[in-house]
Amino acid sequence: MATTQPEFEHPNKAFGLAARDSSGLLSSFNFSRRETGEKDVAFRVLYCGICHSDLHMVKNEWGVSTYPLVPGHEIAGIVTEVGSKVEKFKVGDRVGVGCMVDSCRTCQNCEDNLENYCPTKTLTYGEKYSDGTITYGGYSDSMVADEHFVVRIPDGLPLEAAAPLLCAGITVYSPLKYFGLDKLGLRIGVVGLGGLGHMAVKFAKAFGVNVTVISTSPNKEKEAIEHLGADTFLISRDQDKMQAAIGTLDGIIDTVSAVHPLLPLIGLLKSNGKLVMVGAPEKPLELPVFPLIMGRKLIAGSAIGGMKETQEMIDFAAKHNVKPDIEVIPVDYVNTAMERLAKADVKYRFVIDIGNTLKTSS
Amino acid sequence: MATTQPEFEHPNKAFGLAARDSSGLLSSFNFSRRETGEKDVAFRVLYCGICHSDLHMVKNEWGVSTYPLVPGHEIAGIVTEVGSKVEKFKVGDRVGVGCMVDSCRTCQNCEDNLENYCPTKTLTYGEKYSDGTITYGGYSDSMVADEHFVVRIPDGLPLEAAAPLLCAGITVYSPLKYFGLDKLGLRIGVVGLGGLGHMAVKFAKAFGVNVTVISTSPNKEKEAIEHLGADTFLISRDQDKMQAAIGTLDGIIDTVSAVHPLLPLIGLLKSNGKLVMVGAPEKPLELPVFPLIMGRKLIAGSAIGGMKETQEMIDFAAKHNVKPDIEVIPVDYVNTAMERLAKADVKYRFVIDIGNTLKTSS
Repeated sequence: MATTQPEFEHPNKAFGLAARDSSGLLSSFNFSRRETGEKDVAFRVLYCGICHSDLHMVKNEWGVSTYPLVPGHEIAGIVTEVGSKVEKFKVGDRVGVGCMVDSCRTCQNCEDNLENYCPTKTLTYGEKYSDGTITYGGYSDSMVADEHFVVRIPDGLPLEAAAPLLCAGITVYSPLKYFGLDKLGLRIGVVGLGGLGHMAVKFAKAFGVNVTVISTSPNKEKEAIEHLGADTFLISRDQDKMQAAIGTLDGIIDTVSAVHPLLPLIGLLKSNGKLVMVGAPEKPLELPVFPLIMGRKLIAGSAIGGMKETQEMIDFAAKHNVKPDIEVIPVDYVNTAMERLAKADVKYRFVIDIGNTLKTSS
Repeated sequence: MATTQPEFEHPNKAFGLAARDSSGLLSSFNFSRRETGEKDVAFRVLYCGICHSDLHMVKNEWGVSTYPLVPGHEIAGIVTEVGSKVEKFKVGDRVGVGCMVDSCRTCQNCEDNLENYCPTKTLTYGEKYSDGTITYGGYSDSMVADEHFVVRIPDGLPLEAAAPLLCAGITVYSPLKYFGLDKLGLRIGVVGLGGLGHMAVKFAKAFGVNVTVISTSPNKEKEAIEHLGADTFLISRDQDKMQAAIGTLDGIIDTVSAVHPLLPLIGLLKSNGKLVMVGAPEKPLELPVFPLIMGRKLIAGSAIGGMKETQEMIDFAAKHNVKPDIEVIPVDYVNTAMERLAKADVKYRFVIDIGNTLKTSS
């Protein structure tokens, strides 16, 4: 039926970029957004970050994509309309939406402000709203979401800098806090220096933590130390230096989503040390148990953060001037940016200038 | 030189059982114990538990054994002599020694009462004291150790019941406490129902925790529920029941030292759930990262406990009547007991009645 076409299923016209198949190529897409409900905040999208998961999703590399797919879950803009029962926002406010647009609101996770672990949460794109229509992300001119899933962006923080905080930022901030790795004077490692890794360095430094960047790429040393402010740089293939660093770290944020050995990382930890994985390799990793036992060490996972903590994170970032390093690009550069992202050729996050460069098709 | 023979290297004659080679067969052994130093406590051994690691060690299954090897690190007895500077013990006291007899006393672990994680701690048998002589364990008539590594056994606790607490008991008590799995009303799982597992059930029940025993053996159900007091029994191969139990546990104590899949166990955990390994499979296990990430779950290891906590554990056990189920055996049954242990044919710990059945060779 014609009414189930994306362009006509909701009353509010929307326009953006969609992938039509697993080639991953993004092209113009007319769709629609729901009417602004009584608890909804509608906003004009001005910026949207390109997360590495957008790349996985447009190419269906996780096998869960449906098309047309409008990616984008690092979305920042200005409120254009609020529902009658919205309490926190008004027209003109600077806001953002991250990885989620809904959750059950009743399970233990939701009650604990951990909507991110709600088993029936609704992701910002490529999933279904409770009415059965598809969620479309922030590579688009407009957005609408329940105010519970909308974050206020503090005045001091540019919208284009705020956007990547909504996924990359909270993904590393949350485990640093939850696992107690935010204490002045602790020593942590950050494995991998991409979108997530560079934010982990910045947040950790803002907490007063000593940071060692652990990387396979010697050519990142200067950048890590001089530009990002890391204290130490460790090349993971340099066995002498890895040996010398054994038992020196209180925790590690591991952002690598490729299969990689855990044993050397476990070795870097002190007793009671914590290795937190925020990248998700597709295949199981090898877990040597004895090295965990002999120092009461742990390996954990962590995924984004709840809405309350996301607001806390972005307020902290504004207060302490923690901003991602971004390359702002026009809409017509997005497919090129995706190719560069696949080669890790970006420092450290592409952000699409939607407001100035998205041309409507009308 | 004759003086380096075990029988003559120290002034105090001792007698026990030793393995001479990796056949693992134990036979009479004359050796010697050091003079009781000013901080030392010497005691007559009355009982010694048989830990599964004794079996690994006598057969050199971990490749680190040296012979002759006198096993035993669950040692209980009565003080016979104390050094001039000993403060905590007097002749006649009921005491025990567990897995350690020394540590550096200066590293961060030692300062934190975590001598068990001191990198240079000295294990009770098969290692070297600082003077270079070999440590011999509790399958022997006498023991001597610095008072720091001696535990007071409360009056209400029989010595034969106290002995296994010094390894099996503290190994499960410590992670239940450290990982916060000792809180009234929590739900934990215990994987494997041997020496460690049955103590985990008993301590957890004493803490007021709801316990699910997870086992491959359906025939352990009656025992687990009716005798040990577990609340639920889950057969790990019963996919329907495992499925129904998904997301129900706050933590799991995994005592299995064979290679086994972690994914089903991770699945049983709630968000923020903790899977603690106290058995050490020789080969790496498969670690699926995504299931950890999607619930902020963790996998940790834990090894025995520090001396302060070991005393706390044994005081708690006495107060709450937490005792291992033991089969007390005479010395001449030890080799048979080892064979039965290899087949897991014991409920749940053999304890050697050293005091009444060890015949000296003199």
